Amino acid sequence: MKLEFKKVFDDTKTNARLGKVIFNGKEYDTPMFMPVGTAATVKTLSPEEVKELGAGIILSNTYHLWLRPGEDIVEKAGGLHKFMNYDGPILTDSGGFQVFSLAKPKDITEEGVKFKNHLNGDSLFLTPELSIEIQRKLGSDIVMSFDECVGYPCEEKYMKDSVERTLRWAKRGKDVFKGDNQVLFGIVQGGYYENLRKHCAEELVKMDFDGYAIGGTSVGEPKNIMYEMVSMSTKYLPDDKIRYLMGVGDPIDLIENVMRGIDIFDCVSPTRLARHGHAYTMHGKINLKNNKYKEDFTPIEDGCNCYACKNYTKSYIKHLINADESFGARLLSIHNLSFLMRLINDIRENIKTSTLEEYRDEFIKNYYHKDVVGHDE
Amino acid sequence: MKLEFKKVFDDTKTNARLGKVIFNGKEYDTPMFMPVGTAATVKTLSPEEVKELGAGIILSNTYHLWLRPGEDIVEKAGGLHKFMNYDGPILTDSGGFQVFSLAKPKDITEEGVKFKNHLNGDSLFLTPELSIEIQRKLGSDIVMSFDECVGYPCEEKYMKDSVERTLRWAKRGKDVFKGDNQVLFGIVQGGYYENLRKHCAEELVKMDFDGYAIGGTSVGEPKNIMYEMVSMSTKYLPDDKIRYLMGVGDPIDLIENVMRGIDIFDCVSPTRLARHGHAYTMHGKINLKNNKYKEDFTPIEDGCNCYACKNYTKSYIKHLINADESFGARLLSIHNLSFLMRLINDIRENIKTSTLEEYRDEFIKNYYHKDVVGHDE
Repeated sequence: MKLEFKKVFDDTKTNARLGKVIFNGKEYDTPMFMPVGTAATVKTLSPEEVKELGAGIILSNTYHLWLRPGEDIVEKAGGLHKFMNYDGPILTDSGGFQVFSLAKPKDITEEGVKFKNHLNGDSLFLTPELSIEIQRKLGSDIVMSFDECVGYPCEEKYMKDSVERTLRWAKRGKDVFKGDNQVLFGIVQGGYYENLRKHCAEELVKMDFDGYAIGGTSVGEPKNIMYEMVSMSTKYLPDDKIRYLMGVGDPIDLIENVMRGIDIFDCVSPTRLARHGHAYTMHGKINLKNNKYKEDFTPIEDGCNCYACKNYTKSYIKHLINADESFGARLLSIHNLSFLMRLINDIRENIKTSTLEEYRDEFIKNYYHKDVVGHDE
Repeated sequence: MKLEFKKVFDDTKTNARLGKVIFNGKEYDTPMFMPVGTAATVKTLSPEEVKELGAGIILSNTYHLWLRPGEDIVEKAGGLHKFMNYDGPILTDSGGFQVFSLAKPKDITEEGVKFKNHLNGDSLFLTPELSIEIQRKLGSDIVMSFDECVGYPCEEKYMKDSVERTLRWAKRGKDVFKGDNQVLFGIVQGGYYENLRKHCAEELVKMDFDGYAIGGTSVGEPKNIMYEMVSMSTKYLPDDKIRYLMGVGDPIDLIENVMRGIDIFDCVSPTRLARHGHAYTMHGKINLKNNKYKEDFTPIEDGCNCYACKNYTKSYIKHLINADESFGARLLSIHNLSFLMRLINDIRENIKTSTLEEYRDEFIKNYYHKDVVGHDE
């Protein structure tokens, strides 16, 4: 069964949309936040816990699985779904972002990227064709094109050449993509240059992908630049195809980018912050390592219905984090993912009533209010 | 509500017994294996998972909680049950074993033990009275007397003096123990000297504790010596009181020591082995780090009904352990605890039918058979 997307509603005041991802007889609402399971596990959580949180699509990383355990083992296991015991939709990235962030030094040629395995230093060579082939073996439902992810800022000349190469790579990937049970997304690059974003989007649309991602954000640019990059990309994308903003998950960024036409997001932040003792709340992010929570016998966030907030206090979770007990990271991962699920649900509700801007303003007032108790950063 | 113990059946062929621990309106069968939650969490597991495994009493460590988060915080939280969200019975040890194993150098005087905090090097002084007071604040259901745990082998002269001191400490602890909602156990020491074990047991029995533990095993002695130490202790203990063998959890040791009259056991092994990639099976302990499991798409143990075995393969769990993903340790902890619960259940069934010796012989044949597939050590 191939994953499908159906847009069902347009906000009247912003570019936000409501949609549905249809997979394996089930429907999942968009806008959607996708938890990240880098190494075929959403860190510290069981697949059942991930589903109970209300997750739909989860993301897994091609680069990491390619290195360990290797795509052939996952294929022999019957694919990622069986390997990791998750029957919801799975998206795999292309490896392009990890080449950018983890693998240094790297040598980019027309053929692909030569770089070093960050685990053992071995030489590796990743090409658009190989990325598609690895993702086929992993058996994900959404496959990403291999692209070059470029940092910010970037000279226009380099970005122009890079976009052209990313387009040629997208074409090469599409040519070898079989797509019997998978869909393939193209990735819009172009940095902070509208002409390049436009060109990239238009050329990808000509190739007719099943969905479109926006890449090259969260690479060092300020938030307002990120939002503009998104606007200058979504406006050239077809209305009926799903739009994915890669690697973005800061709460305010979900709201702002939904308003610019984004349907799905992924980010490691909720689980990574959890491992460092941080928790999202509607009144700001709090750091449970802070000594003021030592004798705080209230839940992380009043009114939150997650398993962590229903059963445990800040004092206990702080103790677990201090003692390096993984149950602490697990409780905070549950809370943080639950928070983003609640936020994205709020976003969907406010699209229906065309009140997303008011919701955003209210959110900012609460989340960034310096005097609010609990705001630690 | 105070925890109670009722012996209900004696094996006709060995010294094994069946009993019940009654707590908070629920009955728990003995012989019983108690999972260890050192820092108020059974490592990697939720309290719900621990209960689903069939656990009754769990153990938490006074020494660790004293240092972090501190017994006052646990008391203010409403006690360990509320703090860690576990409504089953909780036993706390006295700190004596950690003084022996973690805190070096130490200086033992009549008053108590002076030693260094293993986390920050601070000077600490633990006495029988303080141990009882900390355990009162922790709010556990079973409190252990503060004792000196001595290694093996040990000169008779030292052991004799140590036993006398342990007896004086037991008396001092009992004198300050209030026991409104707690029961207090004495600890039989005496090393490998039957006269000392007998003397220690008899003197403790005169003080009339609610239960009796056997200490000073698992401190370097061979298995047959441990079994003898247990026999030379249980034979001087009253039939109607619960008997606890501290820190022992190797599968064969559960069987052998139940045959010598032990009712309850605790050990960190199932969860510690899990974190190192090891799994118990009826055909021996296996090490999932072994490369032969790379493409082994079968469960850890055929026929095991635990969550890990029902849903995941050796190949996947091996991958998680290799990638240092805590879900791997969680799955193996579930399996290993589930294995010991299954084993202790088998033991209880074989007491009923007076077939424990046959069960033991069969167990040894399977578990230690070198040719059995999967036996890695």
